[in-house]
Amino acid sequence: MADETGSTKILLDESRIPRRWYNVVADLPAPPPPPLHPGTREPVGPEDLAPLFPIDLIEQEVSLERYLDIPEEVREVYRLWRPTPLYRARRLEKALGTPARIYYKYEGVSPSGSHKPNTAVPQAFYNAKHGIRRLTTETGAGQWGSSLAFACSMYGLECEVWMVRASYDQKPYRRLMMETYGARVHASPSPLTTAGAKILAEDADSPGSLGIAISEAVEVAAGADDTRYALGSVLNHVLLHQTVIGEEALEQLASVGETPDVIVGCTGGGSNFAGLIFPFLREKLAGRIDPVLRAVEPAACPSLTRGRYEYDFGDTAGLTPLMKMHTLGHDFVPDPIHAGGLRYHGMAPLLSHIYELGLFEAVAKRQRECFEAGILFARAEGIVPAPEGTHALAGAIEEARRCAETGEEKVILTALSGHGHFDMSSYERYLSGEMEDFDLPQERIEQSLARLP
Amino acid sequence: MADETGSTKILLDESRIPRRWYNVVADLPAPPPPPLHPGTREPVGPEDLAPLFPIDLIEQEVSLERYLDIPEEVREVYRLWRPTPLYRARRLEKALGTPARIYYKYEGVSPSGSHKPNTAVPQAFYNAKHGIRRLTTETGAGQWGSSLAFACSMYGLECEVWMVRASYDQKPYRRLMMETYGARVHASPSPLTTAGAKILAEDADSPGSLGIAISEAVEVAAGADDTRYALGSVLNHVLLHQTVIGEEALEQLASVGETPDVIVGCTGGGSNFAGLIFPFLREKLAGRIDPVLRAVEPAACPSLTRGRYEYDFGDTAGLTPLMKMHTLGHDFVPDPIHAGGLRYHGMAPLLSHIYELGLFEAVAKRQRECFEAGILFARAEGIVPAPEGTHALAGAIEEARRCAETGEEKVILTALSGHGHFDMSSYERYLSGEMEDFDLPQERIEQSLARLP
Repeated sequence: MADETGSTKILLDESRIPRRWYNVVADLPAPPPPPLHPGTREPVGPEDLAPLFPIDLIEQEVSLERYLDIPEEVREVYRLWRPTPLYRARRLEKALGTPARIYYKYEGVSPSGSHKPNTAVPQAFYNAKHGIRRLTTETGAGQWGSSLAFACSMYGLECEVWMVRASYDQKPYRRLMMETYGARVHASPSPLTTAGAKILAEDADSPGSLGIAISEAVEVAAGADDTRYALGSVLNHVLLHQTVIGEEALEQLASVGETPDVIVGCTGGGSNFAGLIFPFLREKLAGRIDPVLRAVEPAACPSLTRGRYEYDFGDTAGLTPLMKMHTLGHDFVPDPIHAGGLRYHGMAPLLSHIYELGLFEAVAKRQRECFEAGILFARAEGIVPAPEGTHALAGAIEEARRCAETGEEKVILTALSGHGHFDMSSYERYLSGEMEDFDLPQERIEQSLARLP
Repeated sequence: MADETGSTKILLDESRIPRRWYNVVADLPAPPPPPLHPGTREPVGPEDLAPLFPIDLIEQEVSLERYLDIPEEVREVYRLWRPTPLYRARRLEKALGTPARIYYKYEGVSPSGSHKPNTAVPQAFYNAKHGIRRLTTETGAGQWGSSLAFACSMYGLECEVWMVRASYDQKPYRRLMMETYGARVHASPSPLTTAGAKILAEDADSPGSLGIAISEAVEVAAGADDTRYALGSVLNHVLLHQTVIGEEALEQLASVGETPDVIVGCTGGGSNFAGLIFPFLREKLAGRIDPVLRAVEPAACPSLTRGRYEYDFGDTAGLTPLMKMHTLGHDFVPDPIHAGGLRYHGMAPLLSHIYELGLFEAVAKRQRECFEAGILFARAEGIVPAPEGTHALAGAIEEARRCAETGEEKVILTALSGHGHFDMSSYERYLSGEMEDFDLPQERIEQSLARLP
């Protein structure tokens, strides 16, 4: 049943902002393995996490409830940009000559330009509620850092961000955005922490990594009573908060009488993909729909397709609990691809578990194919996508081209996680023909996997 | 009658994209003076403009009809982002402690991030319709250039942009956005044109100006049969196309039962302000509402408040017809304020005429006050505004603060013309305390006015 309304944007009223986050754990055939204390290898309890997170987030992290209420104070801030539009990519379909119908859920309308505020806002809210004065965090491309900086400005919290050195140097505008929201930003590795200083002693020119920056932010939060840490992906509560994406998309597609045949998203830590697919997975597990669910990850950091499903640290220095996840090894340093937000060594434990259950599939793509898709998309639809999002678009375009060959009128849903306004230098690399595609020898993966804890 | 719906965003369905542009000329008590041929000082005819513009735009330029139909092919592209949201700035009101209700019409949701595509799209459409192969234009901060580049990509036209040298150097990301849409971009003054070469011969380090860049783009368009020129502001047809802003805002305010007491916008060439106020001016002239209408211009380029109402050239080299407008003189080079889009020596002739009729008022603001307003706005509402738009916000905030003193519950409407994602270096200057406020001695204005034609 095709959408015949002729609409380009499918909008929802503010009253349709979800009132509950969906916790997919409640509907899985098996529970995900618990995080372990690295010393004892026993499951960690709430008390282990209390130095880092407020109690509400810890409760959400381990909750078995199917739905968790979104506080009114959070919905109040969500109103600044949510519900986000679902677009029918009519001009892209035409450019591809495909009979497929392509829909994309666009999160770039948020103040910081990505899906990250969906979780930054509740995280800041719960911390403020418990009297916390300051949040620390890491950021790669800067999307998470600017989102947390924005969220902190909403609730009057201080915000301190460790930004991966490579991005800090290449993307000054993201740093300036954080500062505009009132945050303090440090290049990571920094001399301000033991973890950072140790890396700098080994390599003064270290380009940094998300894992290192996490170590620094965690160290500072753990060392101060009035300070907590905020993570932008990977953890259960982060994935939970992102389900507003999928809940809205479900309602938007239904409003035009469409049922998705293929849902394709990009994965770094996995929060955008999880937020998109979890509500659809609920419907699939209940037998109401049966879409193919597909993750697209970067070939330079292929945790799902080439990583191992093992207990590993979330950060490079080994400060976090051990989490069972698809990992390339906690000290794996991916090549400097332009999708900085996808350069994480592991995959969210909950998503990894669901992958092991065989409930979605994964493919890896090289960045030149992704930027080619990004340019095609920009010239057809107008929006210049973030490098991370081009991976989802490349997956959607591949599927749509297949439909052009077979004549199948599939309904393809994808999520564009953000705009590329702060990533134009990456487009320059691509347009000038200077963008590299990296080979990742199996040996490099084996080496870091050999150091699993 | 206050809006008690509690909404933050007032949205309209795509079916509510206006079907007609509103031509304010039809309702004015006196017609605006015609443009004159610089040689004969006789009114220019359509044949004088034909080398530069397609016939449809020339007809719109001189039309006396009250409404002009928007082609379906244009509305089709407008659907990518229109209708734009009208926001109630609840968090800003709270931060200001004002009883005023502040609404802002936000044009930053367009693909290129400003109001400029509202006219770029129809201009590209009409040229494509008449078999034109290439459009040339100038751009200051890059908002107009990226908008035309986007519009050209929608209709398969080539696009060639002369970008003011100061912005070309300071804002490489805007240039890259144009290239992502497939455009060619030259720094202006360039050695590619007679006008550019002449300036370079006098000053090899010229930072350029909009007036110079216009000369270059016009020269190239006039010299090739398959090429036309597109202007992003100033002309009647540009202001006409922008009235979709005000028409939507009128409907959106009415939908929540509000009537504006004060409408405040920023003016460079005047198209954003005209687009916002013309539909409200229609209602005012008909006696249905009576808002104060107020333009905020930069103190460094104060064409309304300190310029003279005279016939002058639209460009620096003197290639355009003479237009009666508020002008600082066609070779006035404003100080390098960060709101590059407001650095134009003249004010749209139609707006200048309406100003002379006493139908709106104008104030000039220095850039530090405007950036202060921008930061306050970003930390309250999330959106980082473009430097141009901070002038409108500073005007709205000034009014709201006045209400905080008097206790008046005024309804203030403003237009935020775009986001500042490509202007973060300007925020850095402000945040680091290094931003200059320029004095503009009367002598400098007198000097350039002495060279009026």
